[in-house]
Amino acid sequence: MIVVLKHNPNQDQFDGLVSWLQDKNITVHTSLGHGNTVLGLVGDTSKLDTDLIAALDIVESVKRVQEPYKNANRKFHPEDTVIKVGNTQIGGGTLTIMAGPCSVESEDQVVAIAKAVKASGATMLRGGAFKPRTSPYAFQGLGATGLEYLKVARQETGLPIVTELMDLSQLPLFDDVDVIQIGARNMQNFDLLKAVGHQDKPVMIKRGMSATYEEWLMSAEYVMAGGNQNVILCERGIRTFEHYTRNTLDLAAIPVMKKLTHLPIIIDPSHATGKNWLVDPLAMGAVATGADGLQIEVHNDPAHALCDGPQSLKPETFDTLARKLLTLHNSLQTLED
Amino acid sequence: MIVVLKHNPNQDQFDGLVSWLQDKNITVHTSLGHGNTVLGLVGDTSKLDTDLIAALDIVESVKRVQEPYKNANRKFHPEDTVIKVGNTQIGGGTLTIMAGPCSVESEDQVVAIAKAVKASGATMLRGGAFKPRTSPYAFQGLGATGLEYLKVARQETGLPIVTELMDLSQLPLFDDVDVIQIGARNMQNFDLLKAVGHQDKPVMIKRGMSATYEEWLMSAEYVMAGGNQNVILCERGIRTFEHYTRNTLDLAAIPVMKKLTHLPIIIDPSHATGKNWLVDPLAMGAVATGADGLQIEVHNDPAHALCDGPQSLKPETFDTLARKLLTLHNSLQTLED
Amino acid sequence: MIVVLKHNPNQDQFDGLVSWLQDKNITVHTSLGHGNTVLGLVGDTSKLDTDLIAALDIVESVKRVQEPYKNANRKFHPEDTVIKVGNTQIGGGTLTIMAGPCSVESEDQVVAIAKAVKASGATMLRGGAFKPRTSPYAFQGLGATGLEYLKVARQETGLPIVTELMDLSQLPLFDDVDVIQIGARNMQNFDLLKAVGHQDKPVMIKRGMSATYEEWLMSAEYVMAGGNQNVILCERGIRTFEHYTRNTLDLAAIPVMKKLTHLPIIIDPSHATGKNWLVDPLAMGAVATGADGLQIEVHNDPAHALCDGPQSLKPETFDTLARKLLTLHNSLQTLED
Amino acid sequence: MIVVLKHNPNQDQFDGLVSWLQDKNITVHTSLGHGNTVLGLVGDTSKLDTDLIAALDIVESVKRVQEPYKNANRKFHPEDTVIKVGNTQIGGGTLTIMAGPCSVESEDQVVAIAKAVKASGATMLRGGAFKPRTSPYAFQGLGATGLEYLKVARQETGLPIVTELMDLSQLPLFDDVDVIQIGARNMQNFDLLKAVGHQDKPVMIKRGMSATYEEWLMSAEYVMAGGNQNVILCERGIRTFEHYTRNTLDLAAIPVMKKLTHLPIIIDPSHATGKNWLVDPLAMGAVATGADGLQIEVHNDPAHALCDGPQSLKPETFDTLARKLLTLHNSLQTLED
Repeated sequence: MIVVLKHNPNQDQFDGLVSWLQDKNITVHTSLGHGNTVLGLVGDTSKLDTDLIAALDIVESVKRVQEPYKNANRKFHPEDTVIKVGNTQIGGGTLTIMAGPCSVESEDQVVAIAKAVKASGATMLRGGAFKPRTSPYAFQGLGATGLEYLKVARQETGLPIVTELMDLSQLPLFDDVDVIQIGARNMQNFDLLKAVGHQDKPVMIKRGMSATYEEWLMSAEYVMAGGNQNVILCERGIRTFEHYTRNTLDLAAIPVMKKLTHLPIIIDPSHATGKNWLVDPLAMGAVATGADGLQIEVHNDPAHALCDGPQSLKPETFDTLARKLLTLHNSLQTLED
Repeated sequence: MIVVLKHNPNQDQFDGLVSWLQDKNITVHTSLGHGNTVLGLVGDTSKLDTDLIAALDIVESVKRVQEPYKNANRKFHPEDTVIKVGNTQIGGGTLTIMAGPCSVESEDQVVAIAKAVKASGATMLRGGAFKPRTSPYAFQGLGATGLEYLKVARQETGLPIVTELMDLSQLPLFDDVDVIQIGARNMQNFDLLKAVGHQDKPVMIKRGMSATYEEWLMSAEYVMAGGNQNVILCERGIRTFEHYTRNTLDLAAIPVMKKLTHLPIIIDPSHATGKNWLVDPLAMGAVATGADGLQIEVHNDPAHALCDGPQSLKPETFDTLARKLLTLHNSLQTLED
Repeated sequence: MIVVLKHNPNQDQFDGLVSWLQDKNITVHTSLGHGNTVLGLVGDTSKLDTDLIAALDIVESVKRVQEPYKNANRKFHPEDTVIKVGNTQIGGGTLTIMAGPCSVESEDQVVAIAKAVKASGATMLRGGAFKPRTSPYAFQGLGATGLEYLKVARQETGLPIVTELMDLSQLPLFDDVDVIQIGARNMQNFDLLKAVGHQDKPVMIKRGMSATYEEWLMSAEYVMAGGNQNVILCERGIRTFEHYTRNTLDLAAIPVMKKLTHLPIIIDPSHATGKNWLVDPLAMGAVATGADGLQIEVHNDPAHALCDGPQSLKPETFDTLARKLLTLHNSLQTLED
Repeated sequence: MIVVLKHNPNQDQFDGLVSWLQDKNITVHTSLGHGNTVLGLVGDTSKLDTDLIAALDIVESVKRVQEPYKNANRKFHPEDTVIKVGNTQIGGGTLTIMAGPCSVESEDQVVAIAKAVKASGATMLRGGAFKPRTSPYAFQGLGATGLEYLKVARQETGLPIVTELMDLSQLPLFDDVDVIQIGARNMQNFDLLKAVGHQDKPVMIKRGMSATYEEWLMSAEYVMAGGNQNVILCERGIRTFEHYTRNTLDLAAIPVMKKLTHLPIIIDPSHATGKNWLVDPLAMGAVATGADGLQIEVHNDPAHALCDGPQSLKPETFDTLARKLLTLHNSLQTLED
């Protein structure tokens, strides 16, 4: 950690700071110059509160040199995390394709879509039973019944299911789900993160609409600090000034996450753009950039979907896309060999 | 609602759309031109799902003419909402000053600060017992004990208390709190919003870091749709590309909210900027722009605060500021008369 | 164009607006409802000033249904624009690879790099002679001499050159350049856009750091309105809250531009990210998303480059990447057949 | 300057870096720890290129401790800059009010408005002769004729004039203007900045739509490095995700600029918001936050303005506002005494 002091720092406060740091087994290297004095702190600085130090009268700024996350940090866990889900896995060279409707609407609907996407090559079934909706007057999801329909679809197809948990009070209902999804709006719902950290199902954390890479990894760290190491990251677009697309899909997140962490990363082009004709090109781009998988909305009747129809693909369009994605993924693996 | 169709829309789909709308008692006015065909929908369009219509093959875009919020809408409730809290009120020409520490740390601390801020002119005591922290390794607040200390401070000073609720499971503990605060990270925690909508304490909703005005008002609408009309809005800075300040304080939110809604609006310059030397000028600016009040962090020892020290004022600095704010508020009222 | 009126519009002003529009050969369709009155304007509305109409007392909002750009609009020019440059072309299924140093530093440097990138598969040479630098104290480019060195490199390799024009006073020097680049900071330097619209060399317009798709296309329209139809678009990252990368590369711009316009689109992953280890994955992603080409910084000694070293690839790294890009491009074409 | 090295840096490269720095009379303080090695560079680091150092294989990151601007830096020029313009001044406790039409449309128009705003208390006349417009088909300003009309209005009223220069080729026409304005879109038109730095009229630089504080100050530094120390800053809103207002007015820029620089700062609430009903509250807020002045659009017929009507005030509305602003400014000065 580096501490830059203001000009002519008060000597007493300076001595106080140094001795306080030394009490914590931190070695302080001082660089005196024309301009600012700079302190280099060496030792286990992970427990030091940067805000506290920055608040001192004599301090101008503080910079952490080490990342504030440990469990999620690639430096301490160089091997890729591979997560087993049902008879498939996420990470480790597999291309995961999670497909299904935004909302579960009926048993028939979800079973029909599950069969279709499985035939096209999907490896997991997605579908929302509890739906976060901006308006209190919009359809809020089928809830527990929706979870039951998803399980029926799993039984019919063998596809593991991933579905969103909105509040920790719903956790008991998620006992038989394969992957618990934490939505973008809940990425910093810290009580919810703690709760899923204390159970053992894999957790997929969607990036908040204005979350930095570090904040996103700190949310993963919340889950992992509770004991659950099976965390998956999902980029679904960030909020920018551009409103032609719903959000701006940040594909740089893929190689950045590959560098900073060992956790797998999934891309959701459907929510990122809000337009179904953008799903195909961006899904292809995501695979070529190195994503571990995709989450894609598929609906057998997008025009009458109860939620987010405009971003859903029809099963036949998804079929074409899924085949292209798998071919691309294979040819990229050949290229890397 | 206005529906813009694509060029040469399929006649069957067009007829289908029009008759579907007429079934819902919507009158459809059609404008045919060189370019696009435009439909003007007249009637109660509030129940129509814009996403569903936008997803139709023949539709290019849909524009709502009416706001999607009702309870919070100034058009239907022209009178300002004034909220009684203890022996003070929020809105209605009063300048509310909520002051206190970011985190409650001890009974002595919070009582001492409460006494100091009351003497300076504060009308409410703020303080966090449950703290949303980016890192799982940071101090998470005193929890229920912190709430008890706040109540002691209220008893000693008569100041009503406002404090943050992070999860609906904590709600029973907030029975004796005066105003429940919903933090920026929970602005779209819809289960939490529903829960506070079904009880009767006033609720202050902080604007999410990347929430639009409309999304913010829709969160207020969630609470109000549950029956609780006592909602206060709080602007605390939005996330932009500028990182010198922690966030960018959007003071235009004050007159915009005054136009769109009847709910009172509070400004939090401490969290918005993250720097205590910016609190004074921006608090003054907020009052002159027409805010109903301020939320300001005050700590008797900012350099050793357990949370967010750099943005806290010392009691003596707050004292000077509070007196200036009250004088400014008075002189502005004279100016308007 | 759609005009939404306020409640109870003044009848005289309403009549005045309608007759003013009819004088301009606009047919006005009126929809009266419970809430707002809506006017649908049919005819050639491209000359109407939306700001002027929006400013009327009786008007609540105005929405254009047609895009404000014509020459650049795919609707009026369905065929892809293909631009001939030297013995290569941009667009039309070719993968253009523009490679070279950020700044031209010496004849030896630029010739050596040009030879290397040509051998690897680059189709054009990029290099800056006039450099836009944030600091007045930073290296500002070799200017006219730099242009001469680029021409030498072209002579040695046959690669056409693309280089940035910063001010219209420099235009005479660009007579023998192949493609004129307009930098992101000059995307709305309208006098410069007019100047390059009145000459006939192809112009590549980089997207401004906070430019919307529409503003970017309007800048293309400035050039095209002057008579020059040879315009290329280049996405180089937009400014967002995320600062780990220099900018956020918006790959959705590729399919969006393919839909809205007939102009070719190039991606610059070097400037977008500012980190050379991100160039490879994002260049691959750009090709798979459908880009017409890439602009990539290559330097034979990145650690001692006079400008933007951290984002430059070494020739050997570029060689590996260029081969992968060409293989990917070929296999994607097979996939589409 | 602080240089953080990667783990286990190559010893040869490390020695090379240290001796290269020592050759430049930089003293290097090395802090070795468990984690990263940190170098503190002491001496005149202003000429060191951070990008070059950051590009070295052994370097993880570089942090400047000193600001890259000198002439504009408050640390080296503690006294406020006060700029004389005609018989008024900008800065030094005066409240400057620049008012007038967005575009000069006719002599009658600008003279009438000039007389009106002078009577209300304006101290300078603003008006555009050369207009930056997003569309090539929109009104581009009266050009040289517009400048003549402004001079007539100055003669009639005594108000100094401020007007925008769009390209350096127009500079000779600006010989008799009082303050040259550089627009937001030209904030990083470095050739233009150099040109106005080599003449002696005061220059007002509007903040770019996505410019950081530091970039804005570096643009001021460009002008000052050329010899012209009479620079004024103007905040006019930054681009964010919120589109209800045209831009987001960043009033924190006022105290931040007061701390970082000695240059005066003006606020433009008209362009920032794009809505005339937001001008009054935000102008009041700007004065209370400590602005040196305001730039406000006034038009005698906003509904028929050739440009930006919706954000212009009518003279009678401006009159009320100007009186309130001056009263507020006076009462704040009393408060500070």
